[in-house]
Amino acid sequence: MYFDVASTAPLHPVARQALTAALDEGWADPARLYRSGRQARMLLDAARETVAEVIGCRADEIAFTSGGTQAVQLGVLGALRGNRRRGGHLAHSAVEHSSVLHSAERHLAEGGEVTSVPVDRHGRVDPEVFAAALRPDTALAVLQSANHEVGTVQPVAEVAALRGEVPLLVDAAQSAGRVDLPTGWSLLTASAHKWGGPAGVGVLAVRKGVRYVSPLPADEREAGRVPGFVNVPAIVAAAASLRAVRAEAERENARLHELVERIRARVPRLVPEVEVVGDPVRRLPHIVTFSCLYVDGEVLLGELDRAGFAVSSGSSCTSSTLTPSHVLAAMGVLTEGNVRISLPFGTTGADVDRFLTVLPELVAGVRAPLGLDLPAPAAAREPDGGPLVLDALGKRCPLPVIELAKRIGEVPVGGTVVVLADDEAARLDVPAWCGMRDQEYLGEAPAAEYGGDRGSAYLVRRVS
Amino acid sequence: MYFDVASTAPLHPVARQALTAALDEGWADPARLYRSGRQARMLLDAARETVAEVIGCRADEIAFTSGGTQAVQLGVLGALRGNRRRGGHLAHSAVEHSSVLHSAERHLAEGGEVTSVPVDRHGRVDPEVFAAALRPDTALAVLQSANHEVGTVQPVAEVAALRGEVPLLVDAAQSAGRVDLPTGWSLLTASAHKWGGPAGVGVLAVRKGVRYVSPLPADEREAGRVPGFVNVPAIVAAAASLRAVRAEAERENARLHELVERIRARVPRLVPEVEVVGDPVRRLPHIVTFSCLYVDGEVLLGELDRAGFAVSSGSSCTSSTLTPSHVLAAMGVLTEGNVRISLPFGTTGADVDRFLTVLPELVAGVRAPLGLDLPAPAAAREPDGGPLVLDALGKRCPLPVIELAKRIGEVPVGGTVVVLADDEAARLDVPAWCGMRDQEYLGEAPAAEYGGDRGSAYLVRRVS
Repeated sequence: MYFDVASTAPLHPVARQALTAALDEGWADPARLYRSGRQARMLLDAARETVAEVIGCRADEIAFTSGGTQAVQLGVLGALRGNRRRGGHLAHSAVEHSSVLHSAERHLAEGGEVTSVPVDRHGRVDPEVFAAALRPDTALAVLQSANHEVGTVQPVAEVAALRGEVPLLVDAAQSAGRVDLPTGWSLLTASAHKWGGPAGVGVLAVRKGVRYVSPLPADEREAGRVPGFVNVPAIVAAAASLRAVRAEAERENARLHELVERIRARVPRLVPEVEVVGDPVRRLPHIVTFSCLYVDGEVLLGELDRAGFAVSSGSSCTSSTLTPSHVLAAMGVLTEGNVRISLPFGTTGADVDRFLTVLPELVAGVRAPLGLDLPAPAAAREPDGGPLVLDALGKRCPLPVIELAKRIGEVPVGGTVVVLADDEAARLDVPAWCGMRDQEYLGEAPAAEYGGDRGSAYLVRRVS
Repeated sequence: MYFDVASTAPLHPVARQALTAALDEGWADPARLYRSGRQARMLLDAARETVAEVIGCRADEIAFTSGGTQAVQLGVLGALRGNRRRGGHLAHSAVEHSSVLHSAERHLAEGGEVTSVPVDRHGRVDPEVFAAALRPDTALAVLQSANHEVGTVQPVAEVAALRGEVPLLVDAAQSAGRVDLPTGWSLLTASAHKWGGPAGVGVLAVRKGVRYVSPLPADEREAGRVPGFVNVPAIVAAAASLRAVRAEAERENARLHELVERIRARVPRLVPEVEVVGDPVRRLPHIVTFSCLYVDGEVLLGELDRAGFAVSSGSSCTSSTLTPSHVLAAMGVLTEGNVRISLPFGTTGADVDRFLTVLPELVAGVRAPLGLDLPAPAAAREPDGGPLVLDALGKRCPLPVIELAKRIGEVPVGGTVVVLADDEAARLDVPAWCGMRDQEYLGEAPAAEYGGDRGSAYLVRRVS
């Protein structure tokens, strides 16, 4: 079972059919005036009309890019260049896709200013808070239509109503084709392979009148917005599948919404020490994410793969960069042991039930070697014996939190545990664990104050 | 007949087969660790090995881009950034592809320095002249393997031998897959749809040890060189067709070389007032370009299209930018009435003969309304009657040259004709016409000196 459409969706049958036909009919250069070129141009024009209709804009506002990431990079940097007269400030939510964050880093490196707007525990921005981050010199605001890691839908329409003259870019990568798109945007980006189109096609829509100056060297293709030979066959396939998916979406979304509801309700009852994250109501129909305490996400994903389930994770352990998921960190939830399920069209109740059957066994299997079912907590320490210092220096997350969970019972209620750790992820995981387990996080101190030679000390008071 | 493979080649049957298979086997995200992701990764790795082998480098030196233009833009701007410590100077030949020239303009706009190295009348750089343009602060030199408009092969190996420590980027878009690639480069770029692969795949090869800093926001794909989801199916198809084309090339090149030789020899005998341009010996096997005096290129291309021939042109009249071809201008040949033939594999002698049959009629048909066969030259003017001033102000090229050709017979040998014109292309076309017709170009003066209210005066002495 492939439960990872939020990474990429298998090619839709309509896309495959359209691609095959367009490789015959639309392979020539649409900029040429001879017959095969004019034919490619007609197919390209028709595809642009289709995409514009689904997205809700004019055909001449659509440029096709080489993918969602290029659409975001060009959209963000091009809008910032085009609106320099407003100023050099960029605002975005803290849970945007990495392509937005990396574009923001580039803007910062070039002397711009950036504000990252915080989200609540469900990963959602507050429209008032977002609007308050906008300034007279804000050249661009960026807000995703829905989050790619936890499925939370953002209040784009509310933000659009409050943004005044500030241009707003909406990253619709996870929504386009699946759900109705918000209105009120100035620029919108999307990615065809997320909706069942082929790889290699993205969409950058720029509303008439929105200032835009390409950050790339000049080129006359795609109205000067996207350089290089236009990939007509893939664009034709992308448009055809967008239309097809949109037509199927209403029925499929209702089904997937129920299946995700089943996962959201059952996982916490089947698996101990688990937290389902993301907005339970204002969410995409097909995405659900949960985090398992004391679990190495990469190991769990490997076990699920062996059991026949392809799922993804925002966990530090599966990303090649080894940094914690910035989305989960911004939400203040655990960054370890994270599993994202994103269901393709056609997923059945039986598929989900099979997943729910194997998951508890696999999680238990991953946890088993950690000895969490081992001896009950030892005798409580004297209240005046001072804090219990746990030396987790040199141990990678989630080991520091596991150590904390295993040994907090050794101090009486009201007593303090100090975790010494030098894995940066502990800074997020210890407070998150405290939030889940109703323990009190007291703060951080230099490890040296508790006998450590490096790293930090994280102080926790046992309150239950 | 499609005679425009230098724009884009139809999909090679091997590419289509590989694409279809890879859409089934390689659609998943190659960065994922589950089975379908690992499978995509294996296909990607194999494709990289294949491309590296054909190009003549290591697999880990290859990054796949979204096309040739992106490969050039990243290659040029990334190498300039990476070699900032050398300095801010870029050198390139005057006949590079527009993607190189536009990247150079961007470099210039950002405060860099650029030298455009002139070419000879065949469009070829002199290695000594190119090397002399390199300086201690040259951060990058760019030279194409062969020219895209006239097929002239550049002396890359000779330039590479003289470049010292200056990094050299070779744009191999027209050569990769077709002919042996030169060695001695630091970076190399290519485009799959030029060799029969699908659109949407380019190659950026950066030799180990060559400094490179991506000009785009950070992204971990393709070794940090090309952001965004990797298009595995298209890359697999590109690699498969590269191998297939390379295997067929030796036989096909010999055939196409003969067919191009036939065109080069016959066109000047069949069509009056025509010049075949580009190096007659050091050339690609499949490209030939000629210019027809007194012909509007766009009209001729339209006639050829109606006769069933899809050909291209570097002429100002067919480009949407309405500027003369910079390649033909740099060569000092006519920029008007230009036709580029680029033969696909499989073209037969009969195809070429059919083209050679229709061409003279079509050219004659285009010229007919211009009245070139009308009255013989009028009586010669008195030698002391002063120059013959032809007022072509407000007339678009090629009209000023046509006027000159029709009326130069009105002055005696040794007499002078002054052409007043305000179309910028006249500055190139009048001297080029003089070169072809063995007349002496005397230079340019303000039109006001000869009674014009705008534009320039071009002075020609009749010497034959």
